[in-house]
Amino acid sequence: MFNQGDSYTQQFTVTEAVYNGFLNAFGDRNPLHTDEAYAMQKGFQGRVMHGNILNGFLSYFIGECLPTKDVIIHSQSIQFNKPVFLNDTLLLEAQVAEVIESVKVVSFKYTFKNAEGKRVAKGEIQIGLTA
Amino acid sequence: MFNQGDSYTQQFTVTEAVYNGFLNAFGDRNPLHTDEAYAMQKGFQGRVMHGNILNGFLSYFIGECLPTKDVIIHSQSIQFNKPVFLNDTLLLEAQVAEVIESVKVVSFKYTFKNAEGKRVAKGEIQIGLTA
Repeated sequence: MFNQGDSYTQQFTVTEAVYNGFLNAFGDRNPLHTDEAYAMQKGFQGRVMHGNILNGFLSYFIGECLPTKDVIIHSQSIQFNKPVFLNDTLLLEAQVAEVIESVKVVSFKYTFKNAEGKRVAKGEIQIGLTA
Repeated sequence: MFNQGDSYTQQFTVTEAVYNGFLNAFGDRNPLHTDEAYAMQKGFQGRVMHGNILNGFLSYFIGECLPTKDVIIHSQSIQFNKPVFLNDTLLLEAQVAEVIESVKVVSFKYTFKNAEGKRVAKGEIQIGLTA
């Protein structure tokens, strides 16, 4: 079902609903994320979206976009390369890096790119197959 | 402001509001997270909470619980060791692993433990100081 080199793409948008949903669920109102003037004073063009919104997108990707629903995340990592802003549309590109049949483990490498094609984040996710 | 070995603790509960907020924001309705019978068939005592809810808690910790608000996350990792269930209360313990003054970088190692004191997740976060 998974083979090394298999690749997936999925598009996500940091809508007001996603941003407000994240704020309400987790309460991280750090001014970088909520105060336009503060964010601009720090050199950004506007409020910087929470990096962990991208981790929420990864949850959806693993839970809903693979050829099987019988999966569980073992571990994941993310490195933030460029800021993401409200209403940015991101393209997730994930590739199967390794399949370990004996223990039903699949690892992915992924990147998120913004509409300008610039990489905003990258990382790895390892999942287990539960069926 | 940060010194190697400094430690922080913060308690979080995976309430219905957090769980539903995450579901609504990201739409990951994988049956492991939403179908009690499916989760039990997979050997769990109930629906397994999304691991990325813990990443949301980490966002709050970094954004709101440190001695300064002038921070930005560079990278983070998480390894999931045991399942987390609805209404579980988790204790986050984070320790400063390294401070690199020259580039204003601080790295933390952390664990989340459940009410039984069992470690449910661990990882690392690297932040930049923006002031």
